[in-house]
Amino acid sequence: MSLVIIGTVAFDAIETPFGKTDKIVGGSATYVGYSATKLGVTPKLVAVVGDDFPHQAIHDFKNIGFDLEGLQIKEGEKTFFWSGRYHSDMNSRDTLVTELNVLESFNPVIPESYQDCTYLMLGNLAPSIQKKVISGLKNRPKLIAMDTMNFWMDIAMEDLKKTILMVDILTINDEEARQLSGEYSLLKAAEKIQDMGPKYVIIKKGEHGALLFHGKEMFYAPALLLPKVVDPTGAGDTFAGGFMGYLATTDDTSFENMKRALVYGSALASFTVQEFGTNKIKEVTSDELKGRINEFKSLMSFTHK
Amino acid sequence: MSLVIIGTVAFDAIETPFGKTDKIVGGSATYVGYSATKLGVTPKLVAVVGDDFPHQAIHDFKNIGFDLEGLQIKEGEKTFFWSGRYHSDMNSRDTLVTELNVLESFNPVIPESYQDCTYLMLGNLAPSIQKKVISGLKNRPKLIAMDTMNFWMDIAMEDLKKTILMVDILTINDEEARQLSGEYSLLKAAEKIQDMGPKYVIIKKGEHGALLFHGKEMFYAPALLLPKVVDPTGAGDTFAGGFMGYLATTDDTSFENMKRALVYGSALASFTVQEFGTNKIKEVTSDELKGRINEFKSLMSFTHK
Repeated sequence: MSLVIIGTVAFDAIETPFGKTDKIVGGSATYVGYSATKLGVTPKLVAVVGDDFPHQAIHDFKNIGFDLEGLQIKEGEKTFFWSGRYHSDMNSRDTLVTELNVLESFNPVIPESYQDCTYLMLGNLAPSIQKKVISGLKNRPKLIAMDTMNFWMDIAMEDLKKTILMVDILTINDEEARQLSGEYSLLKAAEKIQDMGPKYVIIKKGEHGALLFHGKEMFYAPALLLPKVVDPTGAGDTFAGGFMGYLATTDDTSFENMKRALVYGSALASFTVQEFGTNKIKEVTSDELKGRINEFKSLMSFTHK
Repeated sequence: MSLVIIGTVAFDAIETPFGKTDKIVGGSATYVGYSATKLGVTPKLVAVVGDDFPHQAIHDFKNIGFDLEGLQIKEGEKTFFWSGRYHSDMNSRDTLVTELNVLESFNPVIPESYQDCTYLMLGNLAPSIQKKVISGLKNRPKLIAMDTMNFWMDIAMEDLKKTILMVDILTINDEEARQLSGEYSLLKAAEKIQDMGPKYVIIKKGEHGALLFHGKEMFYAPALLLPKVVDPTGAGDTFAGGFMGYLATTDDTSFENMKRALVYGSALASFTVQEFGTNKIKEVTSDELKGRINEFKSLMSFTHK
């Protein structure tokens, strides 16, 4: 089934306790897209870059199977740039630079060939732009998932609430779920967020895994333990790409299948953090992915007497 | 099978965002013991209190099925007292008062009737005292588990290492595992701790669940989500009591059975935090426990296509 992804395609410059990078290719749509390709899906990107965006990266995107008809390349403008430094616990970071550049005037255009969209992933971006994509599709997709962050709660809460009302799944981290709902208990937070529109809520807890809520149903996928986390950038987006990629490729939105999708998302995210940027996720083979899925099974399964 | 428990029997005065208590009965042996009784085990306590310890509490212990032959009551002395205040996240706390009292000169004595001990749980206490209990048993128990905390790493690291060398299972929280091993990755921390003696390491992550490590094998039990956590005091001890209680009652130390034991421990701990002190764990029925075990099953199980 067809998966449309909106989000950022960006330059990132990252510092972690294990090293630092120059400007490398990142952005929410990039990670979501790479992750989805690992499940055999052709991600249809809606995004914008400047004319400084490298031809090689465009070539890599095409090569791995992205549909780039919805990628705008703005002549004479610069690509969105973000720079950040992770603290030693890898769970918190400082933003050093944010240059919106092409994002300032981004007006997403949905190509005709994307109108068959059945699965829509709204990567982290201004909620007003996320909303435009939903409106730009003639038929409502079968399933719309949306990622967001505290930044938009601080500066665009009303827009955010309007967009949240239109989606089926909200993915959000634990602190943001608490901020959005005003509830400390994640159980209560997930209930309140479901009252805001989405029938499904996914709470991402980083190294502590992810939770899926739907009414009274609940499922927990731990994060795999790794000998070394080099760079957490893009882990949440990789997770979302794996989750939506799995749903799109199986075309099954039952809760039981969403559980599997959560495990696939977590497995793919565990690759991203092992190297800087997209270095690892780009190269993951289906055998490697199968191996991680089996690790999850053994980490989580017990027989009850 | 017989389960001997050493630890503290104490007065606690607790402040959380949900209220505060006067001096109530607490201590590691108390929580471990209460938890073990929920699995049909008669915990044989080795502990010490002063003559200020209430008769009613002794009566409660006997009533629920504790064997108190190893409980020393010191005339003219006072019971160990701890007071603490939890921060709003419930994950961190400040110690307000620590009065060792009877603990200062505690010399554990193992009654003859405890010598059939097959499962031994060393609750949090000075490692030199924990070690004395091992030496006080004529035959080495089939399985020895030990809990400890950062306090002993700070003031008695050499003693601690000697005791760790003698046990099969070390239970420890994530920050302490990092401190003890000098490794940030919990995977590496667990490896290093296994090199220090214990064949099994359990890393407790509070609201983020618990991990069991044994060589290359690994298992993860999440913590159940609760609408409200009132008082985390004793959760780790309740967990340990459930874990060891389950192993003792099934008398099966296979890794597969330890996984189930981890789930039972987590399920019992989820009761303790719902009310102050031992109020909730004391009253848990086997039907309530069965219900929680089923919640774990549904939270963790997925079918892999």
